[in-house]
Amino acid sequence: MSSTESVVVSVPESDWVTDIGPIDGVEFVVSDLGSDPERADDIEVCVPPYMQAFDRSVFARLPRLRAVQLLTAGYDGLPEVLPPGVALANAAGVHTTSTAELAVALTLAAQREFPQFVRDADRGHWPPGRIYRALADSRVLIVGYGAIGQAIAARLTPFEVELTAVATRAREGDELVPQIHGIDDLPGLLPHTDILIVIVPLVERTHHLIDDAVLAALPDGALVVNVARGKVADTDAILRHAGRLRFALDVTDPEPLPDDHPLWKAPDVLISPHVGGATTAFRPRAVRLLRAQIEQYARTGSIDHVVAVGADAG
Amino acid sequence: MSSTESVVVSVPESDWVTDIGPIDGVEFVVSDLGSDPERADDIEVCVPPYMQAFDRSVFARLPRLRAVQLLTAGYDGLPEVLPPGVALANAAGVHTTSTAELAVALTLAAQREFPQFVRDADRGHWPPGRIYRALADSRVLIVGYGAIGQAIAARLTPFEVELTAVATRAREGDELVPQIHGIDDLPGLLPHTDILIVIVPLVERTHHLIDDAVLAALPDGALVVNVARGKVADTDAILRHAGRLRFALDVTDPEPLPDDHPLWKAPDVLISPHVGGATTAFRPRAVRLLRAQIEQYARTGSIDHVVAVGADAG
Repeated sequence: MSSTESVVVSVPESDWVTDIGPIDGVEFVVSDLGSDPERADDIEVCVPPYMQAFDRSVFARLPRLRAVQLLTAGYDGLPEVLPPGVALANAAGVHTTSTAELAVALTLAAQREFPQFVRDADRGHWPPGRIYRALADSRVLIVGYGAIGQAIAARLTPFEVELTAVATRAREGDELVPQIHGIDDLPGLLPHTDILIVIVPLVERTHHLIDDAVLAALPDGALVVNVARGKVADTDAILRHAGRLRFALDVTDPEPLPDDHPLWKAPDVLISPHVGGATTAFRPRAVRLLRAQIEQYARTGSIDHVVAVGADAG
Repeated sequence: MSSTESVVVSVPESDWVTDIGPIDGVEFVVSDLGSDPERADDIEVCVPPYMQAFDRSVFARLPRLRAVQLLTAGYDGLPEVLPPGVALANAAGVHTTSTAELAVALTLAAQREFPQFVRDADRGHWPPGRIYRALADSRVLIVGYGAIGQAIAARLTPFEVELTAVATRAREGDELVPQIHGIDDLPGLLPHTDILIVIVPLVERTHHLIDDAVLAALPDGALVVNVARGKVADTDAILRHAGRLRFALDVTDPEPLPDDHPLWKAPDVLISPHVGGATTAFRPRAVRLLRAQIEQYARTGSIDHVVAVGADAG
């Protein structure tokens, strides 16, 4: 950054320039990083494309690059290709709204048995009246209490549920849950859970966190909602418990699920095809994040939400 | 009521006696009113059965009857059979939770295209990634702002929507909506509405409130959610606009919908078979209402939520 020259920022499409709007001291160039961008010698901040591959070696060919701002929450494989001193920031918060919304949508659709209504409608059948499960009065356990877990809790609060949260380490409660349990408390909480919502990051210690033992500890009829990553749950264990338990899954393992996979036909399993973040809520939130990050960079020479910094070659 | 004798209350099943629990100065008898109840000469408060027909002439054969407490919100045909001076109370608030919850469930399932996920799952198909509608950022108009309309607003508030409400008459806003419009404002609000949620009572002036003109004024792609009564909307108009608009309907006209009705196959129409109130949320709320009403009767000789009083014969 310099107080006399403009900061040059590369964004993947010209729409981003329009939506972000002009920022004092900032010039935009448009590149999807499919090839080397225009003004490669001047770019200080680079925003790679969303949901599209790009050439990761490009960063090394941008001599003034100081920061890479992603549009995704995940950033696997990128810290390794950062030039020395270049900061990598993820799209913190951009997918929170949409994913939390989907978690509640899956929960409600499973509780109120919407899949059966769709099947009944397709054959023109109005079923006789009976009593369905409500979400109200359910004991809901949110496993993973970061930004998305909290956003789920905020959306569930008006539904008259009993909320409990589990995070890596126990800590004091907030305005949404009276107490945040540590992961070691999970086994003791499961027998008192009607709805288990999983929103942990996929790391080594959360791989198959939802295994046969966890599912076996849930009471009959409990609902398990996975909006985290497919590999956080053991698919074989899900198949063993489907029917006794109910499942609503935005993510699966494997993913995409092959056409002949038994999970498609398992009883009481509702599947959405990994659509947690892919909604109209993404773009306005991404625009707000980019504008805030670029304004801050132009003003201070640094950005927030840094998840890695390129290591010195030496 | 007398300070020395017990008040005798009739309830439809013995479970109600257990769940309500003992109340000082109150004795329960159990009767589904299929025939004249035990202690017919002593009953002062009568709770007729839920979702089950009963002999409406029975009230005239209970000489000490002072109050009838229903388990339903509706009470058609009952004021006419009340003996002189007998108060009729409906189950105010008991179905609010469950109906508001369903309104949000229908809204979310339609926005995020759950019916297609169910159909895809049934044929083992994982669709390619694309952008779906979020509920977030939607302009939601709630038509009917009584207890259920407010409960819907409370549940929608954390979803980052723009809420507007319409009631019979304009009044000041509350903590959920900045302004409550009168019904005359409806035409002007419709072009700025993404999601229209209808929860008005069915009375003469709300019959076919949602007609061709209302639907024509909504922008392409808008969603109409009806959790009121089927006859509040004009089914022919729904059929004309389905596809350009989207619909999520808990109630239909006619109801039940015949097997060969065209609404089953209309594009972008999600139907739940009038399950707004029929959930596990009903019973605990009904028990709380009955206990409060019976306690109050035992203490004061009157009950709340009176919707009619039997007229004098003279």
